[in-house]
Amino acid sequence: MLVNDQHYQTIWLKEGNDKIVQIIDQRFLPHRFVMEDLSSVHDFERAICEMHVRGAGLIGAAAGFAMYVATMEAASKTSFDESVFQSSVLLKKTRPTAVNLEWAINRQLEAIATGKEINEKISLAKKTALAIATEDAAGCHRIGLHGIDIIEEISRKKNGDTVNILTHCNAGWLAFVDYGTATAPIYEAHKRGINIHVWVDETRPRNQGANLTSWELLNEQVPHTVIADNTGGHLMQHGLVDMVITGADRLTRNCDAANKIGTYLKALAAKDNNIPFYIALPSSTIDWSMRDGIKEINIEERDPDEVKYVHGLCDGEWKKVLITPAEAKAANYGFDVTPARLISGIITERGICAASDKGLLELYPEMKL
Amino acid sequence: MLVNDQHYQTIWLKEGNDKIVQIIDQRFLPHRFVMEDLSSVHDFERAICEMHVRGAGLIGAAAGFAMYVATMEAASKTSFDESVFQSSVLLKKTRPTAVNLEWAINRQLEAIATGKEINEKISLAKKTALAIATEDAAGCHRIGLHGIDIIEEISRKKNGDTVNILTHCNAGWLAFVDYGTATAPIYEAHKRGINIHVWVDETRPRNQGANLTSWELLNEQVPHTVIADNTGGHLMQHGLVDMVITGADRLTRNCDAANKIGTYLKALAAKDNNIPFYIALPSSTIDWSMRDGIKEINIEERDPDEVKYVHGLCDGEWKKVLITPAEAKAANYGFDVTPARLISGIITERGICAASDKGLLELYPEMKL
Repeated sequence: MLVNDQHYQTIWLKEGNDKIVQIIDQRFLPHRFVMEDLSSVHDFERAICEMHVRGAGLIGAAAGFAMYVATMEAASKTSFDESVFQSSVLLKKTRPTAVNLEWAINRQLEAIATGKEINEKISLAKKTALAIATEDAAGCHRIGLHGIDIIEEISRKKNGDTVNILTHCNAGWLAFVDYGTATAPIYEAHKRGINIHVWVDETRPRNQGANLTSWELLNEQVPHTVIADNTGGHLMQHGLVDMVITGADRLTRNCDAANKIGTYLKALAAKDNNIPFYIALPSSTIDWSMRDGIKEINIEERDPDEVKYVHGLCDGEWKKVLITPAEAKAANYGFDVTPARLISGIITERGICAASDKGLLELYPEMKL
Repeated sequence: MLVNDQHYQTIWLKEGNDKIVQIIDQRFLPHRFVMEDLSSVHDFERAICEMHVRGAGLIGAAAGFAMYVATMEAASKTSFDESVFQSSVLLKKTRPTAVNLEWAINRQLEAIATGKEINEKISLAKKTALAIATEDAAGCHRIGLHGIDIIEEISRKKNGDTVNILTHCNAGWLAFVDYGTATAPIYEAHKRGINIHVWVDETRPRNQGANLTSWELLNEQVPHTVIADNTGGHLMQHGLVDMVITGADRLTRNCDAANKIGTYLKALAAKDNNIPFYIALPSSTIDWSMRDGIKEINIEERDPDEVKYVHGLCDGEWKKVLITPAEAKAANYGFDVTPARLISGIITERGICAASDKGLLELYPEMKL
C-alpha cells in the first residue's frame, strides 16, 4: 500500500542487493517512517522479538526471509545443515505463540531439504521466502475482493451515501505483507470510488488503531476518524456505523473468534443495533482443533505497565506518561473471544461464509471430520 | 474520605478563617495532592471553569460556597444586592451545562433575599453553603447504606469470597462532597469488612478512572485493579465480575441513563453474562421532563485533542503525548445512553428501585403526572 505516495510492502528484498532484506521498523510509527536492513539471523531475531515487525502474516513472511538469510550464513560454516537447523531453533523462540512463525520455518526446512548442493538450497530458500510473502499478499487481496461485495451492497442500499465502517486494532497491511485482512475490503472499496469512512478504535492499551491503522488510512487517503474504544456503542445507537469488520488471532471451527481485547464489546453493540459484524482472516488463522472459544482459547496476560503507561510523541521525542497512581495495580488481558452468535459472517481468501461449523465447512469441505 | 490517612471532604471552610474556602485542586491528581484557597468570586470562577473541581455534586457545593464569598465581596460595594446578582451571573457561566451549578446559585439567591441587613445576608449565605455541602454528603452516604444490601447479598451467596465490582469513570467522593455515588456502597462494604475488589475502567479519553477512582480507592485501601476500557467483557465472560455499578449524568423518568462514554458497552456485556448492572445517583440527577434517553439527551462533543493526546507523569512532570498521526482526525463524544432494559436497578438516597417509570415513582410518588 502507499506510504508518502510510494508503494510499499512490509518486507522485501533490497533493490540491487538481494542478500539483504528490508522491513519497515514499525516501532516508530506513526511519527517516523523508518526502514531497516536485515542481513543476519541475529538481525531477524531482534526484529521479530522486539516487534519491529508484528502481525500474524508479517511474522510468517519475516520467518521465511530469516531462513533464506540463515542459508547464506550457513554457507560459510563447516556443517551447512547443522547451521540452518540451529538458526531455525533460535528463530522459533522469538515469538513462541505465533503460529505462522513455526509454520513458515517448517515450510522452509522442508524446501531446503529438497536441494542437493548449497547454492541450490540457498536458491530454494529464497524462492520459498518470496512465495510465502507473495501468497500472504495474494490471500489478503482475495479477502478484499470477497469483502467488497458487502460494502457495495450497503452502498447501494444507501444510494451512494457514505458507508461508515468501524474497525478495532490493526488488521491492516502492516500486520501482513500487503492489503491486510479487515482493511482489504476497505482499500478495495476506496479504489473503486465507493464513499466510505472508517471509525478507528484507538485500541488501548497498545493503541494499534491510533498508531498504525490511522497511519495506514491516512497514507491511502481513506477518510477516517480515530475514537476512544468507549465510543462505538454510542455511534451505533445513532446510526453512524453501517458495518463492523475486524481481524482475528484465532478462529475455532465453530467460529468463535479470539481478537484484540475489546472486540467482544463492539460485537455486542453491533448485535444490539442490528449492524453486521464481520471477521476477516486468512485460512491459516482457523484452528480446526478447537470448538468453544471461550472455554478453550487461552488468553495471554501481558505486562500491566502497558495499561499504566501510554507511549507517544512529546516535544519531538518518544516518551511514556504514567496515567495511574504509581502504586496502582493494573491488569492487561491481550485478547477476548467473540462468540459465533454475534458474528454475521467470516471473510477468508476463499469467500464469505456464515459464522458456524456448517458455514465454514462449505468453504473448507476438506476439513469435514 | 481518607487521603494519606487523614479525613477530607472535597470542599470546606478553612480552619481558623471561615472567610476562606479550601478545595482539592483535582487537576494534579493522582500524582500530587494540592489544596487551594479560594477567597474571591474570581477564584471560584477559575476553579470551576478550569476544572480544579468537577463532578455534579461538587460543582453544586462549590457554587454554594462561591455565593457565600460573593456576599462578603458585596459588603464593600455601593449596592450589595446588585453586586451579589452580578456574581451569580458570572458564576452561572462557568459550566453552563451543569444542572447543580444553577440550582445551588438560585437556592443561595433565595436564601440571601430573606435576610434584612448585610451581616444577616452573609450569615444566611454561609449557612446555606454549608447546608448544600452537608446535604450532598448525607445523600451520598444514604446511597451507600442502600447499595450495601446488594453487595452483602452477593457476598453471602459467595460464602464470603471476594465480591468483584466493576466501575466506569469517577462517580467517587471527588465528584461530590464525600462518599460519592457509585463508590458509596463500595466504601460501606469495605468499612463493614466485606471482601471486595474493584475493577477500575481507566475511562478514556480523560482517564478519570485511572487518575481519580484508583487514587480514591488506594487512599481508602480498597483492593482494586486498573484495566483498559476494552477489558470488562472478557472479565465478565470468565466469571470475574459479580456486579457493575456506575454513576449517571442524567436519568430520564423511564430510567435511560446518560453516563460517561462507554458505560453502554459495559451494560451490554453485563446483560450478556447475567451480571447485575446498577446506576447510583442523587435524586437531583433525575430529569423528570425526559423519557427516551437515546432520542432526547443531547450528547456533548468535546475537544478531539482529548483523544489524540494522553496526559500523565513523565520524568516527574505533567506531560502529554500524541498517540495518533499529527494529521489524524479524531472525534470525542463525552457520554452515551444506557437504555433502561439493560439496568438491573437504580440506587438513590431514597432506596433501590427497578429501572422503570413505575419503579422510580415508587420512590418518588410526588412525581406522578
